[in-house]
Amino acid sequence: MSLLKIAHVPAAIVDAGDTVFYAVTVMARERVGAVAVEDKTLKGDLQGIFTERDVMLRVVQEERNPRGTLVRDVMTSPVETASEKTTAKEALALMLDRHLRHLPILGSAGQILGMLSTRNLLSNKVEDLERQLDSMDQFLLNDGPGG
Amino acid sequence: MSLLKIAHVPAAIVDAGDTVFYAVTVMARERVGAVAVEDKTLKGDLQGIFTERDVMLRVVQEERNPRGTLVRDVMTSPVETASEKTTAKEALALMLDRHLRHLPILGSAGQILGMLSTRNLLSNKVEDLERQLDSMDQFLLNDGPGG
Repeated sequence: MSLLKIAHVPAAIVDAGDTVFYAVTVMARERVGAVAVEDKTLKGDLQGIFTERDVMLRVVQEERNPRGTLVRDVMTSPVETASEKTTAKEALALMLDRHLRHLPILGSAGQILGMLSTRNLLSNKVEDLERQLDSMDQFLLNDGPGG
Repeated sequence: MSLLKIAHVPAAIVDAGDTVFYAVTVMARERVGAVAVEDKTLKGDLQGIFTERDVMLRVVQEERNPRGTLVRDVMTSPVETASEKTTAKEALALMLDRHLRHLPILGSAGQILGMLSTRNLLSNKVEDLERQLDSMDQFLLNDGPGG
């Protein structure tokens, strides 16, 4: 299964030159905890991500003004990314290993396709494991010892 | 297994009369996305929780000053809670149903024991399901058809 089926697609995107206040408005409207950041002066490639945690640690805690601060000055950058070919297992291992909560998924030309969260990945893995257990239960019922 | 083994214990706690700026400092130091809120003028019972999302939506988006705003004015309240007797399954069902990311765990006297996150619950469930699958695999290898 493609990671895009698990991810938030399309990703919410802001420009590196947008204000923190604008980015927070986008995050609230899209009900997401992170937005991808591109830079229209740099052909729109991914520059980083901006997350709820960045709002808390780099804006509120450092006493910056949300209307006077640009996303490029407080975003998380550089960031790890996944491609359409990355498996859910690889993505989860990377995110748990590096303590990432969000992972942007890029297309082959570098375009931003979606945003994956550990929460979505873990939910998906729970469903997948439950399906495997169900089918083993079925197998044991039909063909197993004492079946 | 007690929910307390999965939760963040002890919970990070602030007072309803603390400032948002102070609460964010606690969240940063404890590396958590939510703190429990008690009120020392009300015998220390749980008043609500204050989360990264509250920082984003009720402080930054509503243009409040973090040093001039009290937690009681922007916290999430009332909140659902769990007890030590709540099972992981019950907690996860409640949190997914109500779209909660954090759930405080209270002792029988109402004291705040820990803070559960959907992420911790899902990680725990993945581990649990993987153990079940492993033991079914072992069973099939040792006793199952063709074993």
